[in-house]
Amino acid sequence: MDFRSDNTAGFAPEMLAALAAANDGPRTSYGEDAQTRRVQQHLCELFETDVQAFFVATGTAANVLGLSLLAPAWGVIYCHEEAHIALDECGAPGFYTGGAQLHTLRGEHGRLTAAQLAMLLPDGRGVVHHAQPAAISLSQATESGTCYHPADLAAIAEVAHAHGLRVHVDGARFANAVAFLGATPAELSWRAGVDVLSFGASKNGALAAEAIIVFDAALAASLGYRRKRGGHLFSKMRVLSAQLEAYLTDGLWLRLARAANALAQRLATGLAVIPGVRLMHPVEANEVFVQLPESVIGALLADGFRFYRWPDEGSTTIRLVTAFDAREADVAALIEAVRRHAAR
Amino acid sequence: MDFRSDNTAGFAPEMLAALAAANDGPRTSYGEDAQTRRVQQHLCELFETDVQAFFVATGTAANVLGLSLLAPAWGVIYCHEEAHIALDECGAPGFYTGGAQLHTLRGEHGRLTAAQLAMLLPDGRGVVHHAQPAAISLSQATESGTCYHPADLAAIAEVAHAHGLRVHVDGARFANAVAFLGATPAELSWRAGVDVLSFGASKNGALAAEAIIVFDAALAASLGYRRKRGGHLFSKMRVLSAQLEAYLTDGLWLRLARAANALAQRLATGLAVIPGVRLMHPVEANEVFVQLPESVIGALLADGFRFYRWPDEGSTTIRLVTAFDAREADVAALIEAVRRHAAR
Amino acid sequence: MDFRSDNTAGFAPEMLAALAAANDGPRTSYGEDAQTRRVQQHLCELFETDVQAFFVATGTAANVLGLSLLAPAWGVIYCHEEAHIALDECGAPGFYTGGAQLHTLRGEHGRLTAAQLAMLLPDGRGVVHHAQPAAISLSQATESGTCYHPADLAAIAEVAHAHGLRVHVDGARFANAVAFLGATPAELSWRAGVDVLSFGASKNGALAAEAIIVFDAALAASLGYRRKRGGHLFSKMRVLSAQLEAYLTDGLWLRLARAANALAQRLATGLAVIPGVRLMHPVEANEVFVQLPESVIGALLADGFRFYRWPDEGSTTIRLVTAFDAREADVAALIEAVRRHAAR
Amino acid sequence: MDFRSDNTAGFAPEMLAALAAANDGPRTSYGEDAQTRRVQQHLCELFETDVQAFFVATGTAANVLGLSLLAPAWGVIYCHEEAHIALDECGAPGFYTGGAQLHTLRGEHGRLTAAQLAMLLPDGRGVVHHAQPAAISLSQATESGTCYHPADLAAIAEVAHAHGLRVHVDGARFANAVAFLGATPAELSWRAGVDVLSFGASKNGALAAEAIIVFDAALAASLGYRRKRGGHLFSKMRVLSAQLEAYLTDGLWLRLARAANALAQRLATGLAVIPGVRLMHPVEANEVFVQLPESVIGALLADGFRFYRWPDEGSTTIRLVTAFDAREADVAALIEAVRRHAAR
Repeated sequence: MDFRSDNTAGFAPEMLAALAAANDGPRTSYGEDAQTRRVQQHLCELFETDVQAFFVATGTAANVLGLSLLAPAWGVIYCHEEAHIALDECGAPGFYTGGAQLHTLRGEHGRLTAAQLAMLLPDGRGVVHHAQPAAISLSQATESGTCYHPADLAAIAEVAHAHGLRVHVDGARFANAVAFLGATPAELSWRAGVDVLSFGASKNGALAAEAIIVFDAALAASLGYRRKRGGHLFSKMRVLSAQLEAYLTDGLWLRLARAANALAQRLATGLAVIPGVRLMHPVEANEVFVQLPESVIGALLADGFRFYRWPDEGSTTIRLVTAFDAREADVAALIEAVRRHAAR
Repeated sequence: MDFRSDNTAGFAPEMLAALAAANDGPRTSYGEDAQTRRVQQHLCELFETDVQAFFVATGTAANVLGLSLLAPAWGVIYCHEEAHIALDECGAPGFYTGGAQLHTLRGEHGRLTAAQLAMLLPDGRGVVHHAQPAAISLSQATESGTCYHPADLAAIAEVAHAHGLRVHVDGARFANAVAFLGATPAELSWRAGVDVLSFGASKNGALAAEAIIVFDAALAASLGYRRKRGGHLFSKMRVLSAQLEAYLTDGLWLRLARAANALAQRLATGLAVIPGVRLMHPVEANEVFVQLPESVIGALLADGFRFYRWPDEGSTTIRLVTAFDAREADVAALIEAVRRHAAR
Repeated sequence: MDFRSDNTAGFAPEMLAALAAANDGPRTSYGEDAQTRRVQQHLCELFETDVQAFFVATGTAANVLGLSLLAPAWGVIYCHEEAHIALDECGAPGFYTGGAQLHTLRGEHGRLTAAQLAMLLPDGRGVVHHAQPAAISLSQATESGTCYHPADLAAIAEVAHAHGLRVHVDGARFANAVAFLGATPAELSWRAGVDVLSFGASKNGALAAEAIIVFDAALAASLGYRRKRGGHLFSKMRVLSAQLEAYLTDGLWLRLARAANALAQRLATGLAVIPGVRLMHPVEANEVFVQLPESVIGALLADGFRFYRWPDEGSTTIRLVTAFDAREADVAALIEAVRRHAAR
Repeated sequence: MDFRSDNTAGFAPEMLAALAAANDGPRTSYGEDAQTRRVQQHLCELFETDVQAFFVATGTAANVLGLSLLAPAWGVIYCHEEAHIALDECGAPGFYTGGAQLHTLRGEHGRLTAAQLAMLLPDGRGVVHHAQPAAISLSQATESGTCYHPADLAAIAEVAHAHGLRVHVDGARFANAVAFLGATPAELSWRAGVDVLSFGASKNGALAAEAIIVFDAALAASLGYRRKRGGHLFSKMRVLSAQLEAYLTDGLWLRLARAANALAQRLATGLAVIPGVRLMHPVEANEVFVQLPESVIGALLADGFRFYRWPDEGSTTIRLVTAFDAREADVAALIEAVRRHAAR
C-alpha cells in the first residue's frame, strides 16, 4: 500500500517484454537502428507534425537538455516555485545552460498564468546588466496534480513569444494530462505554442525512458551534440527505443495514465467527503494532496500505508500518488482507513 | 557476422532475467533500495576494500563524472590520443569539469608509460598562466585492445601521485582486462594507485549499466550531487542495480569477458598466419586490429561481414570486435574467408 | 549636477598621480612587483590579520571570483533580492561557479537578518535532489544605502557557519560603511565571520580597482588560477596596485567616503523636512532614496539635475548618489530646487 | 636593460595624459559616453568597414570573449601549440566557451598553414561522438615573432570557411604585424577572412586596454552580455576609451610598434653576425629568439641584462623583447656584451 511516488512503482510488463524482444542480435548502435527510427516516426504521427525526438533515460536529462536549447548562459528561465527543475534537479538547468538562472514564481495549484507572465516580462530585455528573459518552463501535469488546458498554454505561449521567450514543458506526467484533458498531444504542445516538450514515460510504467520532443527542427540542430557530451547517448539505443515503442503501441501510454488518474479520482472522491479531510488541489492527474489531522496521519503510517508529507516533514498535508500499477483495493483500503481514523 | 563493436551486440539473458525479477512491487526510489545496497556491498568485496560506487547508464557518464572529481576547471587531463574521452565523447570531459583541457599523448599499442609521464610532468605546476596538471586517464583495456599490467599501472600512478595528479581508469572493457591479465580487480585498481575507475558493463552484456568506483571516500563526497545535476540519477535505480547484480553474480562478468577474449585470440591466431595479413597490436582483450589488402576487405564486405576500418574510412586496417555473444562459427567463417580471399 | 551614480563620477587626482608615478621603468609583470606586495602588506595591516588579496578591475569580477571560492556548481547562494549579484551582473555568479543558483530574499531597507536565514537554512542539506546551501552574500553598504552593524553581520555569519555556509560581502561601498559605522575593517569582516570580501575602490574615486580579500588562506589557494582563466590577471599589475596604494595611503579611502557620506546626510536632512518628500530608507552611506511628487521630478529634470528613478522608470522614488567628488553647492542647489518645486 | 617582455614595460605618456584628460566630470557609465563612441567610430575608419568594438582590459579577456562567439561548448579550436590561448591563459578558452577543446598544431616559426588545416579538417564533422571543428585561432604577430602575410591569412581563412570554421586572430601584437608587413588593418583582418580580432594595446604602451573587433554584426549580438557576465564591463568605460583614443590618435599605435620593431631588427642584425649566435626565427615584430652558448647567457645575466630563456629555464635559446619604450643604447649595449662574451 505504497502511495509515495510513481517512481517507487515497478515496470509495465509490456515494457519488459519489449526489451526481451529487442534482444534480437546485432544492431547498429547509437540510435541508427530501425526500431529507433520507427519510434521517431510514431512520435511524428502522434504529434501530427514532424518532430525531432531524442531519447534519454531520465526526466532531469530530458528537461535540462531541452532547456539548454532555449536559454543562453546569461538567460533567465521562469518557472513555478515548486517546479521539478527548481526544486529537484540539484541545479541541473544551470549546469546544462552554462549558468542560466531560474526565476521562480508563485501560482495557485501549481499553475502559472499568462497575466502573471505579462506583468513580469517587459523588465530588463536588452540591458547588458541583467540576465535576459529566455524561456518559461511549465509542468504538465503540474507538481500539484493539476493541468493546463490548451487555452491556458496558448495564452502563456503568446505572451512568451511576444517577448522573445521560448516555451518548455516538463511532461514527466504528460500522459496523465492528456488522459485528463482529453486533448490531443498536438493541442497540448505545438498547436498551443510549446517549443520543446519532455515526453515522459518513466513515471508511467517505463523502466527509464523519456523523449525530448523539439517542434522546430532548426532548434534541434545542436541537440545531438548536447546529448552526447552530457553522457546521455545510449550505445544500445534499443534499450530506450524498445520501451518507447511498447509505450506508444496500442495506446499503452494512455491506458496506463487513465488507470492511474481514475484511481486518483476515486481516492479524492472517497476522501473529500470525510469530515476533517481537506483536499488541497483539484485532482486532475494521478496525485491527491489532502490535509489530515495529525492523528490520522500517524494512524495511517502505523497501518503501514506509505506516502510523503508535503512539501516537507513538518506538514499535515500528505501527497498520495496513484501509480500506473496502483490497485483499487489499496485505494479502497486507504479511504476506509482514513474514514475510520478520522471518526475517532 | 557482425564484428563492428561490443555496442552492436545485444544483452546477456541473465541481465534481462534480472530486470524481470526486479519488477517486484514498490521500492524506494533513487538508490535507497536493498538491491542497490547489495550491489554496492558486492563491489566492496570484489575490490577487497570499501569503495564508493555510483551507478549510471553510459560509459561517457561514468568517465566524465569520475574525471570531474579529479580535475578542476583549470586542470589538464593527460590521456592517450586515441582515448575514448579524447575522441568519442564530444567534449564531455570539458563539460563536466567546467573547462579542463585534455592533453593527448602518443603511445605504442594504445598504452602510455610512466617514463613518458615523468618527462612531461614538471611543467607549469603552480604557475597561474598555465592550466594545471590534474589527472591522467588510462583505458583498461586500451582502445588498441591491449592491457596495462599491474606493474605498469603502479609505475604510472607513482609518477602521477608524486606530481600531485590523480589516476583515472576508463574501464569500459575492465572485465576483458581482468580476464586477460589474471590479476584481481584490486591489483588493477587501488593497489596499483588508481583513484577512480569506470567499471563497465554495457560493452560486456549489459543493456546499459556502469559503475563509477571511487577508492577514496572523501573524494566521492560530491559525486551524488554531480550525478544528479548531470541528469544521471535513475529514479528507478533497480534498473541499473538489477543488471549489475546479475553481472557480478556467479562471475558472469568474467565469464562473458573470457568468452569474448577467447574468440579474439582465436581470431588473431587464425588470421596472423595468413600471408598478407598483419596484426597491428597484441591481442589482449576482445579486439583484433589487422591490416589487409584492400581487395580482401572488399571481398569480406561483399560476403556480408561487418566491421569498421580503423581509425577511419580511408584505412586498410580493420577492427574486429568479438562481443560477449560472438559465435565461434562466425569467427571460423571470418578466418576462412580471409584465407580464401587472401589466397587469390 | 549629476546624482546618477558613483560610476558616473571621475577619478580622484591622487589615483591619477599614483599611475603617473608608477610609470617608472620596467617591472616584473603579473603582480610580482614590489608595489603589489606593498599593497598586499598594507591590506594585512588594515585588516589586522594575514589576508590573501587579489586585485581586479571591476566589482563584478571581484564578487564572482570571490563567490566561486564559496559555492560549488550545485550550490545555492542566498542574497537580497536587490543585490548587485542578483540584478546587475547578468548571471555572472552562475558563470563563475559553473551553475550555482541564487536564492533571493526580501529584507527591509536592503538588509537580511540572521532570523530570516535561520528559518530558511535547514532545508535540503545533503539531499542530492536539491541544490545545496553554500553561501550567503551581503552588500555592505546595501543597495538601499544602509549598513550592517558588526553585530548584525556576526549574527548572520553565526547562523551561516552553523549550517555549513560561507559568508561573502559585496563591499563595492565598503568604505562608505566603514565611514558611517565607525567600526574597523576587521570588525566588519573576519571578526564578524566574513569569509570573503570585495573591497571596492571603483565607486569611491578609483579609475577601476577592487581587491578580493580572502581571510582563510586555504580558501584562496585556487584564486590565482580562477582570476587568470577569468581573464582578470593584469599583465601590468602596477595599474591596479598603484591605484590601491594611493587609495590606502593617508586614509584617502576613508576621506573620500566620509565626504560622500556627509553630502548624502546633508541631502537627506535637507530633503526630509520638505512637505511631500518621503525618505524611503535610512541614509547610512552615500545614497538617498526619496519619493517625490511626479511634478517635482519632472521639474528637477527640466532644471538639468540628473538621477535615476528607482527601481525603474515607472517609479516616483528617485535615487540620489553623492559620489566622492560631489559638490556641496550641487547638493544645496538640489535641496533648494526640491523645496521650490514642492511648494507649488 | 630589461628585455623580458612588453608587459614589463611601462606606459606611453600619451596614454597617461589621456586618462588625466578624461577626468572631466560626470559621464554616463558602462560605455554610453561620447569618447567611447568616438573610439568605436575611429576603429570603423581604421578598419574601413563597420566593426563592432568592445573594450576590455586584458588580452586574455579579449581572446576568450572573442572565441566564445565562434566555438560552441562542443567545439574544437585549432591553434599553434605555442599560442597564448594554449599555453598562457590557464584554460580560459574552455571556461568562456563552456568546454570547447583546443587542438594544438605544430608549425614552423610559430605559423600554421592552409595546407595543414586542409589535411586536418574533413574529420569528424557532423558525427555526434566527436567534438566539432569550430574555429582556428592565429596569433599575429606570432609567439615566435613572425607574421602572417595577408595572402597566408586569406588561404587559411578560405580553408576554414569552406569547412564551416570561423577565424580568430589574437592580435596582442597586431600593431607590430601591421608595422612590419606594411599592410592595412583591413587587409590583415576582414579582407583576408578574419571574423574576430583581438586588437591589442597593452603590449604596445597602454596601461591595460584591448579591443575585441567583430566584423560581422550578427556575430556580435551576444557579446555585450558575455562581456558583462565575464566581469569585463568597466563601469567607468572612459578608463579604457581614453587609452584607446590616445592609441589611435596621430598614429601613435603604429609609431610605437615601429620603434619596437626597429630595435628588434637592430638587435637581430647585430647579434646574427656574432659567431656562436644562432637566430631561431625570422624577426618580423619586436621579438628576437637567439641561441647562445650557456657561458654567454650566464655572463649576460651577470652583467644585469634581463630576459627569459625560451621556452623554459632549461633552454639555451633566449627571447629578447624590445618594448615600445626600449632604448637604442640598451640594444647597443646588449649586442656589444654578446660580442664580448662570445669572443672569449
